[in-house]
Amino acid sequence: MARYTAFSLMASRRKRPSESSQLAKIERAFGRTVNRPKNLPLGIGDDAALFHPTTGCETVLTCDWFLEGTHFLRDKHPPDAVGWKSLARAASDVAAMGGTPRCFLLSLAIPQAVTGAWLDRFLGGLSRASRQFACVLAGGDTTRREEILINITVIGEVSKGRALRRDGARHGDTIYVSGRLGEAERGLQLLGELHRTANRSDARLRKHLYPEPRLALGAWLAENGLATAAMDLSDGLSTDLRRLCAASGVGARIDAEKLPVVLLPPPPSSRSRSKRRGHKIQDEALQLALHGGDDYELLFAVPKGKELQIPPVFQGTQLLSIGEITASKKIVLIGQESRPIPLNPGGWDPFRANKKG
Amino acid sequence: MARYTAFSLMASRRKRPSESSQLAKIERAFGRTVNRPKNLPLGIGDDAALFHPTTGCETVLTCDWFLEGTHFLRDKHPPDAVGWKSLARAASDVAAMGGTPRCFLLSLAIPQAVTGAWLDRFLGGLSRASRQFACVLAGGDTTRREEILINITVIGEVSKGRALRRDGARHGDTIYVSGRLGEAERGLQLLGELHRTANRSDARLRKHLYPEPRLALGAWLAENGLATAAMDLSDGLSTDLRRLCAASGVGARIDAEKLPVVLLPPPPSSRSRSKRRGHKIQDEALQLALHGGDDYELLFAVPKGKELQIPPVFQGTQLLSIGEITASKKIVLIGQESRPIPLNPGGWDPFRANKKG
Repeated sequence: MARYTAFSLMASRRKRPSESSQLAKIERAFGRTVNRPKNLPLGIGDDAALFHPTTGCETVLTCDWFLEGTHFLRDKHPPDAVGWKSLARAASDVAAMGGTPRCFLLSLAIPQAVTGAWLDRFLGGLSRASRQFACVLAGGDTTRREEILINITVIGEVSKGRALRRDGARHGDTIYVSGRLGEAERGLQLLGELHRTANRSDARLRKHLYPEPRLALGAWLAENGLATAAMDLSDGLSTDLRRLCAASGVGARIDAEKLPVVLLPPPPSSRSRSKRRGHKIQDEALQLALHGGDDYELLFAVPKGKELQIPPVFQGTQLLSIGEITASKKIVLIGQESRPIPLNPGGWDPFRANKKG
Repeated sequence: MARYTAFSLMASRRKRPSESSQLAKIERAFGRTVNRPKNLPLGIGDDAALFHPTTGCETVLTCDWFLEGTHFLRDKHPPDAVGWKSLARAASDVAAMGGTPRCFLLSLAIPQAVTGAWLDRFLGGLSRASRQFACVLAGGDTTRREEILINITVIGEVSKGRALRRDGARHGDTIYVSGRLGEAERGLQLLGELHRTANRSDARLRKHLYPEPRLALGAWLAENGLATAAMDLSDGLSTDLRRLCAASGVGARIDAEKLPVVLLPPPPSSRSRSKRRGHKIQDEALQLALHGGDDYELLFAVPKGKELQIPPVFQGTQLLSIGEITASKKIVLIGQESRPIPLNPGGWDPFRANKKG
């Protein structure tokens, strides 16, 4: 397809849906389902949106890329999962701060080829996420592009001084994670084996396609002052834990045995050499938990004396202590033999683009 | 260059600057020049930024694409102009609301090839704009991509109930524009003739490369309640005026003679057939003023009785009345013969991608 640029004065005049009709489609998708709340006196259709901040709150601001070819594939990811996940990822940053999402801006660049059914389904997934997270579409920017480019800004709020930052972890704090680690990466692996668009209802792909930002958990930790530091796990535990420790000027000791790993099914031919295969599966699950990205679980540090206030399950999500913050700046993993080994970052970094440390 | 994706487990392990080093470069570019203000307790480096809203203010939210190949060309636009303009465009939306920019989020996707000098110069232009507009970098997202993709979110503030919207224009209001119209489009034409990177100090390209959002003017109009409606001219007068009129449910009559057109130089061989050429130049200047995009001037409607409060020049920028809001929903242009002709939109619409109506 030809590229249309601001420079193409001689571009084709073939009739195409105009930008206004894209906007109308977006407005319809959201207008049908979400009434504009009182704190959004002006949404789509003006130069900018207006938002009424809540008295006593700070505004939480975050933005996230979601790009075809980098973060999703047009031929494998269902369009509604692209819509859902693009907002879920950004909302997860608000969860990691202990905030509550209020509204979002959608920047969307799409080719003509996807302005029909693909766009409808994308907006379907996005508006479902918008309702689920109580995060209203406030505005955005649309343009045409050969590849699908998405950027989402989420605006959230948190009570003044209550935000969960990365830099408050202290020696002796207990390290917790929510949910199960490595499930999204495992889903990505399975998706990689497909030669068609993934089945939306495949439970093994659920965490990869439809991640659930831990909004209620983050807000509860923040409002009750239970965590000294927190972040969401987007690039893998080994990479993200290092960031939290660097920000706090501390180290960490992680207990491999305590990690909430994925339960991998044994391979079909598992009857032979079952013990060795069993070890291999265990090791694979551990690698996924340590280095797998995209889980959007919360990683948080709880100070001594407050661990008892952390329940084993919060609103259906398991909370597990997996280790301890240490004074030395090393980050180590303790395995079966109790001999600590350095835990090197092996998660996702677009500028490194290798997955093992 | 190979594309690195979340799916490339087998991607090259050749050493590359990591995402963290890109962030460090960005932090350095801004840290050197801008101290974090009190209303930004937390900026780059956490899951999200925190912003303290000002009591009595509404938050203005806007985002803008700035994409290689669509909005700029790597081989023609100086990198510092790309940095300047990416922020200026988004800040202009805040000006159009009568707001004051506070901070911005930068989403940047770049190829390895531009992580050196290009990125330095880009950040130079961006941080110069950031200082000029008093709009501090609060956070963002970076990733790798073959083409340079930029998305900017600007967060601004405006006193409650004072925002300049598009939907308040009424029959009898006088229509004003700031500055000169068509200058940016003329610069784009000249740039199109170049076979190299534009000269940063070429005055003819200044408006195209380094547009100045009318922040002081917008804030002054809003605080003094002088405009019933306003917007910025990003897609050309003929397209944008139609949007303002549609939002307000009114029409407009524009006087061609009053438009602040660009003064075009006569062509070198102008001695022959000078009168006909003179007409041609006049017509070209008029077309540029009506349909040229990217000027980022303000278009605003002033109610009867308040015109006397609009000075001919505001802080060095000319303000001109160019027509009147009408009750009929037609948008017409009155030329030399005083016979009104319909003014059809001919500005920039990425989904139409033709330039004349």
